[in-house]
Parts: sequence; structure tokens; C-alpha cells
Amino acid sequence: MLTADRVVSGTDVLQLLARCRQGDRVATSRLLSLVSRGSQSDRALVSRELAAGEVPSAITLGITGPPGVGKSTLTSALIAELRGRDKRVGVIAVDPSSPVTGGAVLGDRIRMAAHGADPGVFVRSLSSDGHLGGLVRSASLAARVMGACGYDVVIIETVGVGQSEVDIAQIAETVMLVLAPGAGDSIQAQKAGVLEIADIYVVNKADLDGARATVADLREMLLLNRPSDGWRPSILQTVAGTGQGVADLVTALFSHHEACVSDGELAVRRHRRSLYETRSVIDAVLAEQLAGVDVGEAEDPYAAADASLRMLGRRLLDEGVGAVLG
Amino acid sequence: MLTADRVVSGTDVLQLLARCRQGDRVATSRLLSLVSRGSQSDRALVSRELAAGEVPSAITLGITGPPGVGKSTLTSALIAELRGRDKRVGVIAVDPSSPVTGGAVLGDRIRMAAHGADPGVFVRSLSSDGHLGGLVRSASLAARVMGACGYDVVIIETVGVGQSEVDIAQIAETVMLVLAPGAGDSIQAQKAGVLEIADIYVVNKADLDGARATVADLREMLLLNRPSDGWRPSILQTVAGTGQGVADLVTALFSHHEACVSDGELAVRRHRRSLYETRSVIDAVLAEQLAGVDVGEAEDPYAAADASLRMLGRRLLDEGVGAVLG
Repeated sequence: MLTADRVVSGTDVLQLLARCRQGDRVATSRLLSLVSRGSQSDRALVSRELAAGEVPSAITLGITGPPGVGKSTLTSALIAELRGRDKRVGVIAVDPSSPVTGGAVLGDRIRMAAHGADPGVFVRSLSSDGHLGGLVRSASLAARVMGACGYDVVIIETVGVGQSEVDIAQIAETVMLVLAPGAGDSIQAQKAGVLEIADIYVVNKADLDGARATVADLREMLLLNRPSDGWRPSILQTVAGTGQGVADLVTALFSHHEACVSDGELAVRRHRRSLYETRSVIDAVLAEQLAGVDVGEAEDPYAAADASLRMLGRRLLDEGVGAVLG
Repeated sequence: MLTADRVVSGTDVLQLLARCRQGDRVATSRLLSLVSRGSQSDRALVSRELAAGEVPSAITLGITGPPGVGKSTLTSALIAELRGRDKRVGVIAVDPSSPVTGGAVLGDRIRMAAHGADPGVFVRSLSSDGHLGGLVRSASLAARVMGACGYDVVIIETVGVGQSEVDIAQIAETVMLVLAPGAGDSIQAQKAGVLEIADIYVVNKADLDGARATVADLREMLLLNRPSDGWRPSILQTVAGTGQGVADLVTALFSHHEACVSDGELAVRRHRRSLYETRSVIDAVLAEQLAGVDVGEAEDPYAAADASLRMLGRRLLDEGVGAVLG
């Protein structure tokens, strides 16, 4: 992997961005390395230049669902379909459960299937460094970077349906939940989770027995849970391996995006993502700070806490998001 | 329940403490209400006076174990045995899973069984207000208050063996894990948790089939996991309902306490508890602060986080542990 040299100024970031937009993959890789492995001030610098500049932003699609339903294959099929419509596609493959390898494997799988040589496709893996807040923060900024680099659609794919995947899905503007036939039980089990936040439901492996029953289960669940106005979630069937149903899926994605633009929901979701990213930056700074706080030897825990909190306060006041240790 | 009037100064706290030590139960109840339901500055005031004064401290015993093993009955039997040895006993019944009622029910159960009219026994229930840090913080300070009030032994009883119970148990100086016969499976399941932190293992309901096998399982587990020096954990059998084995249990408690005094472990554990309480005060202040942070409308999440962190820093620097909202 490419090791990023340090950027030292906003000008460096702007130069990198300009090169990215001309299709310079080395520059893109370097910029994304700054996001995922750089210092907090590197990230803050990248974020500032994105916010200040007139940069394009991508349609972001979050894909989640239980392991084994074929999310990676479906992602590859979506890439192929989007490329056929002349869209440039960025992929962020996120594995919160893996410190390094899992995420990389996931990314590699997609990369191979999607013809790594295609200049219109860029795949980046993000794995957990043990701090979920850091992952949400990185994924959100990476998606903005890919948008600024000129990718039309950014797919954020997660490996499962745990709370962390739900959190990550919520930084996307359109959320796709992938299930496989016979997922009735897992639908029940997940009813308080990601099921309710998806905009598009996909029953993949629709050539297997039980696809219709799963669709019916989903339809019933949506009738029970959904408000009567606004976007009515789609339920689609695909066979990712053959591409069956994938064109309809891409059409549903664009339909949802256009519905969001016209009813103002897109602005709401982008604002929500911004708040979410802000919160995760705050959490990450505080977590790093707290790990380094020496709570001392005082007899009185409240006095010790008081001293530590004032020390922390001084540091935050002086340095803000730059208040990261060592 | 008694509603605490506000205390306004350290003098108030000292006067309350003096009344508590003379056996004034209304004063004791009021002081413990300040700890569990008072403001942060009330708690800080109580903690300061405890740390500054020459107050006695109790032997603290944490009792944990799966539901249904008879922890409450055993607690009642321990109280009776300790009273027979002329020890005053405070009990803190903690239920992290219950917002209010569960903890109260647990406390009531112990209170009834232990003859609520006995002036040498004081039972207090603590339930979660949804914030575990708050509960650890309250339990730790409540134990110190009971010690300062002249109770010789303070029992902290929790309802289960989840992570929160393990956390709470760690504020005790002696940790007792209660199991019932046939708990082999649950021993396996818990091997990474509370099993390794207990100092005394109790197989209660020892008149039931399988008690010996459970003792053998425990012995094997301890042989595998324990360091060769220091306290060698006891494994005892009891029938809490009849009192069988309870005298030996109390003897084991005092033996462990004395071993801790003589090998310096007591100081280590009290220091650890102090650090733990400090951390939970810090966490509670930050959680309250963060819940009230307005992350604003900035285009750039890092700029928004920066502004929020500096605002938080200003407040912490000015107010320390007093920086609680509303």
C-alpha cells in the first residue's frame, strides 16, 4: 500500500484534489490514506478544503445486510450496471469487526470482480482500528472525498447488520438492505434495527426457493411500520451472479435520489450526515484525550475528576479538534 | 421515599454524618439520597468531606452471580451471621437493568428478610437512571458513606453477571461469586468475565444434586486460571435458606480481608476503586455535557466539532465536575 507523505497545507490538499479529478489514481489513493490513516489535523484540513471549495458531491448508497446474502457480488453487479450508464463509481468497503484483514479481503473481492483496471472505478477498504467512532468518521469523509474527486455514485458497503453497520449506513443518502430467501427469522430478529431505515429492500438469490415468501414478509413488515407519506420503500428481487434485476435496482436508486432531491429529504439527510460526522469527530477527540488523562492519586475521586476535567478543558479550549495526544 | 432537602455546605454534610454515626436513620437515608439522586455538586461535597475527615471505612463485599442462585437469601443469611458477630451491616442493592422498580424490589426483599427494624442494618436500593457510569459512581460513594456512618461491612449486591455487574463488583474489596449446582455451562460461558475476579466462590443450594460436580468444575477452572502466589480463592458450599455454611463464609470474608491488609492488596484495591470512581465521574460529566452540546449548522463537520470542543473546553475549565447541565 501507498504510504502517504505528509500534506502540510490546504494548498497541498487542493493540488491533490485537482489531480484526483483528472483521474490520477495515485493522488486519489494518497488523499484517501490521509483520511483513513492520517492525523486529525490532516483530516480537518481535507474537510475544510472540501467545505470551502466548489466541489461536486456523489450520490451515496449504503449497502447492508446479514453475512452470506451476496452483498459483495451485488456490489460488483451494481458497479457494472452503473458503468454501463457511464457513471463513475467509488466503493468504500467497511468492516467494523476486523482490525485490518477482513476489510481488505472484502475490498479485494470487489476490486477483482469489478475489473480493477477500470479508471471509472475506485475501491477503498476501511477496517476498524478498534474505535468505531473513528470508522464512521473516516467513512463519511472518504465518501465526501470521492464525491469531490468526481465519482458520481459512492457505495458504502458494510459486512453485517449490527449496530455499527446501522450507524455506518446512516451516513448514506440511500440505504439498501440486502436479504436472501428464507430470511424471515432474521427479519423478525432485526425488526428494531436496520430494517426500518432502509429505502430499498433487495431479496437477492431470488432464484432460490422462498424468495416470494421473503418478499411477502417484507411487504407486511413495511405496511406495519412505514408512515403513509413520503418515499414508499421499494422491494426488489435480484440474482446478483447473473445480473438479473440489477438494472431495476439502479433505476430504483436514482428514483429514490430524485425523490429525495424534490421533497427536500436530501438536504435533511446531508445535514444529518454532517451532524453525525461532527459527533464522531467529537467522540474520537474525547476518547483519545481520555485515554491519556492521568487521574492521579487524590484521596477524593471528585477532586481528582475535577482536576482532570479542568486539564482536559484547558487542552480542548486551546486546541479544539487538534487536541489529540502523541 | 424520603425526599432530600438540599444541603448547602460541607458543614451540613458533616452534621448529617455526625447524626448518622449516632444511629439516626433519617439522616443516613437523607445522606444516601444526596448520593443517589442529588446534584453533582452535592455528591462532590459529600465526597470532599469524607476524604477530608477522619472517618472509618467499611469492609466492602461485592456479591454477584446469575439470577436464581439465591443471592438475596444468601445476603440475608450473611446479615444475620454478621449481626451475630456484632457487626453493623450496610447493604447496597444494585440493579443496572431496572430504571426503578427492580432495584427497589430487590432491596425490599433483603430488607424484609433481614428485619428492617434492626438498627444495625441499613439497606439501600440503587437502580439505573439509564447511565451505568452514574450507577457505579453512586454505588462507590454510597459504600464510602456507609463506611463513614460506622457500618462495619457494606455488601454491594448486583442482580446478574453482565459486564455492568462485573464493573460494579470491582468497586468492592472482596468479590463473592454465587453459583448453584449444575452451573457448569454458565461457568463455561462466563469464563472471560466475573469468574476470574472473584475471591470467594459460593456454591449455594448445596443440598441439591450436582453441588459436588460444580465445586469440582470451579476447582479445575481456578487451577487453570489463577496465579500461584497471593490469595488462593476459597470455594464454599452453602444452603442460604437454612444458614448452613454461612458462618464459614463470613470467616472466609474476614480471612480474605485480613490477607489483603497484610499483603498490601487492600491499599491496591482501594486505590483502584478510587480511580474507577474518578473515571466514572469524568464519564458522567462528559456524557451530560455532550448530550447538551449543540453541534450547529456548519458546512464543515470538523469546524463544527472544533467549535463544540472549544465550547466544552471552556465550560470544563471554568467548572470542572460542576459542569453539569440543567
